[in-house]
Amino acid sequence: MSVKRNKAAASNGEYFPGIAKIVYNPAAPADDSLVFRHYNASEVVRGKTMEEWLRFSVCFWHSFRGVGLDPFGSGTITRPWDDGTETLEAAKQRLRAAFEFFTKLGVKYWTFHDRDIAPEGNNLSSTNANLDIIADLAEELMQKTGVKLLWATSNLFSHPRFMLGAATSSDARVTAYAAAQVKKCLDIAKRLGAENFVFWGGREGYNSLLNTDVKRELDHMAAFFKMVVAYKEKIGFTGQLLIEPKPKEPTRHQYDYDAQTVMAFLHQYDLSDHFKLNIEPNHTTLAGHCYEHDVVMSFIYGKLGSIDANTGSPDLGWDTDQFPMDVKSATVIMKTVIEQGGLAPGGLNFDAKVRRDSTDLRDLFIGHIAAMDTFARGLLNASRVIEDGHLAKAVASRYSTWTGGLGAKIAAGKATLEDCEKFTLEEGHPTPVSAHQEHFETILNNYV
Amino acid sequence: MSVKRNKAAASNGEYFPGIAKIVYNPAAPADDSLVFRHYNASEVVRGKTMEEWLRFSVCFWHSFRGVGLDPFGSGTITRPWDDGTETLEAAKQRLRAAFEFFTKLGVKYWTFHDRDIAPEGNNLSSTNANLDIIADLAEELMQKTGVKLLWATSNLFSHPRFMLGAATSSDARVTAYAAAQVKKCLDIAKRLGAENFVFWGGREGYNSLLNTDVKRELDHMAAFFKMVVAYKEKIGFTGQLLIEPKPKEPTRHQYDYDAQTVMAFLHQYDLSDHFKLNIEPNHTTLAGHCYEHDVVMSFIYGKLGSIDANTGSPDLGWDTDQFPMDVKSATVIMKTVIEQGGLAPGGLNFDAKVRRDSTDLRDLFIGHIAAMDTFARGLLNASRVIEDGHLAKAVASRYSTWTGGLGAKIAAGKATLEDCEKFTLEEGHPTPVSAHQEHFETILNNYV
Amino acid sequence: MSVKRNKAAASNGEYFPGIAKIVYNPAAPADDSLVFRHYNASEVVRGKTMEEWLRFSVCFWHSFRGVGLDPFGSGTITRPWDDGTETLEAAKQRLRAAFEFFTKLGVKYWTFHDRDIAPEGNNLSSTNANLDIIADLAEELMQKTGVKLLWATSNLFSHPRFMLGAATSSDARVTAYAAAQVKKCLDIAKRLGAENFVFWGGREGYNSLLNTDVKRELDHMAAFFKMVVAYKEKIGFTGQLLIEPKPKEPTRHQYDYDAQTVMAFLHQYDLSDHFKLNIEPNHTTLAGHCYEHDVVMSFIYGKLGSIDANTGSPDLGWDTDQFPMDVKSATVIMKTVIEQGGLAPGGLNFDAKVRRDSTDLRDLFIGHIAAMDTFARGLLNASRVIEDGHLAKAVASRYSTWTGGLGAKIAAGKATLEDCEKFTLEEGHPTPVSAHQEHFETILNNYV
Amino acid sequence: MSVKRNKAAASNGEYFPGIAKIVYNPAAPADDSLVFRHYNASEVVRGKTMEEWLRFSVCFWHSFRGVGLDPFGSGTITRPWDDGTETLEAAKQRLRAAFEFFTKLGVKYWTFHDRDIAPEGNNLSSTNANLDIIADLAEELMQKTGVKLLWATSNLFSHPRFMLGAATSSDARVTAYAAAQVKKCLDIAKRLGAENFVFWGGREGYNSLLNTDVKRELDHMAAFFKMVVAYKEKIGFTGQLLIEPKPKEPTRHQYDYDAQTVMAFLHQYDLSDHFKLNIEPNHTTLAGHCYEHDVVMSFIYGKLGSIDANTGSPDLGWDTDQFPMDVKSATVIMKTVIEQGGLAPGGLNFDAKVRRDSTDLRDLFIGHIAAMDTFARGLLNASRVIEDGHLAKAVASRYSTWTGGLGAKIAAGKATLEDCEKFTLEEGHPTPVSAHQEHFETILNNYV
Repeated sequence: MSVKRNKAAASNGEYFPGIAKIVYNPAAPADDSLVFRHYNASEVVRGKTMEEWLRFSVCFWHSFRGVGLDPFGSGTITRPWDDGTETLEAAKQRLRAAFEFFTKLGVKYWTFHDRDIAPEGNNLSSTNANLDIIADLAEELMQKTGVKLLWATSNLFSHPRFMLGAATSSDARVTAYAAAQVKKCLDIAKRLGAENFVFWGGREGYNSLLNTDVKRELDHMAAFFKMVVAYKEKIGFTGQLLIEPKPKEPTRHQYDYDAQTVMAFLHQYDLSDHFKLNIEPNHTTLAGHCYEHDVVMSFIYGKLGSIDANTGSPDLGWDTDQFPMDVKSATVIMKTVIEQGGLAPGGLNFDAKVRRDSTDLRDLFIGHIAAMDTFARGLLNASRVIEDGHLAKAVASRYSTWTGGLGAKIAAGKATLEDCEKFTLEEGHPTPVSAHQEHFETILNNYV
Repeated sequence: MSVKRNKAAASNGEYFPGIAKIVYNPAAPADDSLVFRHYNASEVVRGKTMEEWLRFSVCFWHSFRGVGLDPFGSGTITRPWDDGTETLEAAKQRLRAAFEFFTKLGVKYWTFHDRDIAPEGNNLSSTNANLDIIADLAEELMQKTGVKLLWATSNLFSHPRFMLGAATSSDARVTAYAAAQVKKCLDIAKRLGAENFVFWGGREGYNSLLNTDVKRELDHMAAFFKMVVAYKEKIGFTGQLLIEPKPKEPTRHQYDYDAQTVMAFLHQYDLSDHFKLNIEPNHTTLAGHCYEHDVVMSFIYGKLGSIDANTGSPDLGWDTDQFPMDVKSATVIMKTVIEQGGLAPGGLNFDAKVRRDSTDLRDLFIGHIAAMDTFARGLLNASRVIEDGHLAKAVASRYSTWTGGLGAKIAAGKATLEDCEKFTLEEGHPTPVSAHQEHFETILNNYV
Repeated sequence: MSVKRNKAAASNGEYFPGIAKIVYNPAAPADDSLVFRHYNASEVVRGKTMEEWLRFSVCFWHSFRGVGLDPFGSGTITRPWDDGTETLEAAKQRLRAAFEFFTKLGVKYWTFHDRDIAPEGNNLSSTNANLDIIADLAEELMQKTGVKLLWATSNLFSHPRFMLGAATSSDARVTAYAAAQVKKCLDIAKRLGAENFVFWGGREGYNSLLNTDVKRELDHMAAFFKMVVAYKEKIGFTGQLLIEPKPKEPTRHQYDYDAQTVMAFLHQYDLSDHFKLNIEPNHTTLAGHCYEHDVVMSFIYGKLGSIDANTGSPDLGWDTDQFPMDVKSATVIMKTVIEQGGLAPGGLNFDAKVRRDSTDLRDLFIGHIAAMDTFARGLLNASRVIEDGHLAKAVASRYSTWTGGLGAKIAAGKATLEDCEKFTLEEGHPTPVSAHQEHFETILNNYV
Repeated sequence: MSVKRNKAAASNGEYFPGIAKIVYNPAAPADDSLVFRHYNASEVVRGKTMEEWLRFSVCFWHSFRGVGLDPFGSGTITRPWDDGTETLEAAKQRLRAAFEFFTKLGVKYWTFHDRDIAPEGNNLSSTNANLDIIADLAEELMQKTGVKLLWATSNLFSHPRFMLGAATSSDARVTAYAAAQVKKCLDIAKRLGAENFVFWGGREGYNSLLNTDVKRELDHMAAFFKMVVAYKEKIGFTGQLLIEPKPKEPTRHQYDYDAQTVMAFLHQYDLSDHFKLNIEPNHTTLAGHCYEHDVVMSFIYGKLGSIDANTGSPDLGWDTDQFPMDVKSATVIMKTVIEQGGLAPGGLNFDAKVRRDSTDLRDLFIGHIAAMDTFARGLLNASRVIEDGHLAKAVASRYSTWTGGLGAKIAAGKATLEDCEKFTLEEGHPTPVSAHQEHFETILNNYV
């Protein structure tokens, strides 16, 4: 069963004929959802414009390839630009529609997988040729609109050949195929000026430990990344390489479980200098952490490269890739982003999709607008939090015993257990001091 | 509300008067639960006795201090050896009862926290003095019974002073106190011939990111461990240092989330050479992994030090520390143990407790016996799995393309993306081969 | 190990000497957490005061008995009014402190368990006598302060005798004891003018299906409730009876899993006319639902009696009873409350506790104030949502096909499958219409 | 991207040419997975054959329509009988292949959705006509092979028209369509002698409470079921109607969350006399219960109609529909089935699919064989458990206080709170007795 499709066509050169460029109007009525109330691209916050802080990006796959397919039913969404075929003509129409969308929405970045934008051919050569043709059009549209490429990535999980993984496939020929595919995608990324290149190991993981040699597969994954680094350097691609953690789905257990698991892997195989992380909060919460955990953990070790701004439902055990709508969560994320001095060359990429039953064209705009407003509110809130300094001051005061005396000596790595024992025998039992969690939560609520 | 306690006393020198040494009798009736049906200590399996493979250990805290307290009610369990007081006399009675239990059960190892075995005094000096007195008795009982110390650990989480952590407390004086406590416990461990020393970071974590400086706390944790390593080397303690991961509980998020998180930390702070891991499956499943995941992940990187043999309920979100009763799970664990050539100097420590409503003395025996039989069955099953070689052969055949040609070159780190592209252009699209998961599961079921 | 306690005492007749009555001051600085910014008791919203809509209540157990004990450590919290003893004198001091707190905070209701407020005696008679004495004092303090009793409940889970449940204990004598205890508590509730009486089946559930006769236990639970109804009617207690669902903890599986499970039970045993539900969102989310689910499900069937206003952490699998701090969640709850026309005779009871490391007296105020402000914001937001009518109108328009024609006939129970077939054969395939979820979420965000 | 398909064809009239009828051979080598080691159809257990107890059924959808599609990739599985088209010819080939499979496997039942077996036409009339044609063939094949129809069901979730539900769609025309579809399917079910008719409310639920009128939707669901009951009676269909609970997926929250939620619904709308439940353990565990919970809960209220024998992975939050391979779980399920005296007219339907990377034809056999052997072992184990009576006796003894005296009076509904108080005042504090969970677990392990 599938959705009936009309012949794809732009109406008088427009794919979204009833929708004009989205404007900033904080006074719009509450049921108008095609307007920004908070995102004002040129508004300056702490010395940068909102646009510079937020670096919003629209992903191609969900919004221009997604049709609402799920494991229990066929697609529900038809698009005027899409006849559903795997032809180059269809690919071009989708791309043109996408750039109209980017422009009307007012974002400066986009992201794609190689296989989203161009159809697979009969063999790698023809697939690569297809990709070249579409890259030509992408280059032209990017030049014309000023929209830039936040990152590119290779889809190494959708085709049946990758059913057992790509870099970690049990079949070396599949790994070779994946390597060849990434080579081409890196070439394209360089040509289009991608500021990053992402690896999401879609099927790098195991479904059963019984039939899997985990060590061997992880060794192969490291070897694969080393080939990537060598080629990147050879061709002079200057974008940042990023790995995106996810704990499970589609495999039972993904090797890149969460930020710290990926950092362990990078250390284990001496790859830490070459990769940062692309953090997706919906993956973080699936791994059992709170929404902002992986953003914080990668930040503190200098590994926060970029963010896939989305959300899941905490009551669900799978990736729903919803548009982020929670202002408090956006506030704590943006607080870390400001502390890092920004995300560049990364950004906030909306790896989010309209619900399967949000079948109207305008729903696509509404989802993005609401998410952009949510993060704009987050930025403004976080900026005020930092400006006022109440939270930072309260945190610092909790650690005051570490800034001098034995505390400072321990922190500097110059103390011994014997020093500590001597101190304790002299000073006696320390009295614990309240951590005042409710007070900190109240302060945050005063900014949200 | 609390349980009424009688004056503690041994009955004619025995604390378990009705219970004799547990014997091996495979023909016992199905409702006799005070007998081994599978664990036969001296039975030889692949060149070692069951006792040597399994290295069972009883933990002191659950079985000799646990009273069934939970957040919703007071203790339910009274013991003839325990008057519930924090006196040295009570501590000695508990220890004598424990050694009677170890002996009747027939295990060769025990484990303890410093604060389980000896009462806290008015200050660190008197607390240390208490510990010395009890260590004297422990030494005597160990010598008399031949029971050895698998590992010791410091309880750095129960006392209110540790409410904000120990190594990661916001208060440097608390960290100093913890360091002093560990120093003493290392001395005791050395004296009692502990084969390992474990760190479970009970409250090393955060309850709220709002009031926490995560980076600072992790730096302190590393500094703490470096002091431990220095002292260990200074006194010549030869036991293995182990860190035990746990994802959450009591804190909202523990820093030692799971095996790979701990490995990331060890790499980050250059501590990898000094620590292995103590894996508890109930913690592994709480972190969202399958039962054996962390055992496998630590094994493949040479980090599997010891195992806390217990289980949780997959439908619950907290640590229940139940006795492991599932033979299939025990089989896959023991398969990895055999592949590693054994766990020594680690072992299988029963970090498990009788249920709060299992209030009889014999329940304490039954839980341990059932767990020992479960792991004995696991050992026997795993041994046959390995003996027959069906699983190993089937796994190896899945990776046959990696043993020569381009596969071997990639695996050896000698290939490039260009090599892979050339190969793929010549060889075309690889055809995926079934991973046969159901076949592997059938084979395992044939041994369980 | 336990916290050292001083002799309990009021300082010049005050237990919270530095803290005055909390006032409403929307202009307070952001780091002042001892002030209301949103809760203005006398402010009128849709024809009622905030106080009337919100009916806030403080629970006695967490705030006046909680000491921060958890399964991994002893209490951390000491209170000036509490020497930790189980004497009547201590009970009276706690109660006086509580009423000072209620008054300074400015809430009009409180709640208690029988065993929180008065100590257990040597037998039921003396326990009942203790309860009478404390009830005298409670009556006096209630009269003096004007604070009323939202509900009372019997603690049928903390004492060891209830380790296997109360109404569902395997031991009929325990059930009899519980029944006797409830009888007394109903008498006290009547005397103190309780507006409700709550049953939370703390240990009514199973830990293992192997040793449990579930049917028998549920039959006993129904028999128990029927005795309660008979006695309530006999003594003329006019309060509403409420059952509080919880899915698990302390037992592995509680019989009152969630709102619909309790409704099934009430129907099964013909008890529906006599009970409504007390919904706690932290229990709702533990059952796998979204925060407001059980509030909505009980509302639509006329069963929403009262709410325990608290929250958990979505990344944790146990009950944390945190103060509710999320304004969006409070908004959707209050939207349902307004739709119901209010909660009376129920209310918003803060079944919440300060964190174990929030050890200051002022933390107790801060938690409650922040929660009251959160729900006041929720009320104001929900009121504007309803006032504007955008959401309600958009929802109604989604169901427009049900208001006439075949839709109305089906809804009225007057259509047949044959009617539907005839209609479909004539009308053809219906075209689905977008559900516009992102649009609805945007509208809500415009009010939060 | 999609799998290349050959022209579908039987090879010399066979679709599984290399595979003969699966035989019973307990002595087969451990790596032979195409043989029964435990399932011996004619073996008599407690007066019935294994075949009679187990009533195995193969589902058509997973095994004859599933191609390994998942949200992250296209299908991986090609079948010799399937060209992937939606023609009647393709439908017939699939059905012939299925009956060859049923026969070679040796099961006596099958199940299907209307839309699995016959293609959707251009309108309802032509769709119904297609179904008639395929039903003719099904009837012929059933007669020829002796395979019977355990149950039929209508697929009311895959087609885009059902994106908002069927009985609970916001669009009455969709509900009418669904009703017409069910009418036809009931006709077919009657004609083919279906022993049951199942309703799984695939998209009956909500994705967001914001845009949903839950009460209205549940009222419509009840109205829908009443039309079904009326039509069933009118045409004299004698099969049992069953509702299958599932907590979530595809919708965020399904109305038929679990067994007790469905029972609440049936009571609420006075439908209890007409429906039993079809329990799927993978759904039960997703709802937060243990594997056997819903089987037990529906059994005790006389509502256990049939079982979808499958399993999930406890570490995953979505439905994986794996073949059940755990003998202990199968044992506890079969213990309840024996206690009920069997499942007829229900059965054990394998709502299970081979893994996406199990692409070989023989994997399809292996999964089913392993599951059948697992349940055969479960039956044999459960039979011995019941035969020996140790568990039943131990359970009964736990409730001995309920068989006389006040216990019996309470259980009979003849006691009052006053009786209980009098008893307690006279008898004093009951002393709790151990529930011996570890002992019960040991007994079970002795049979597994």
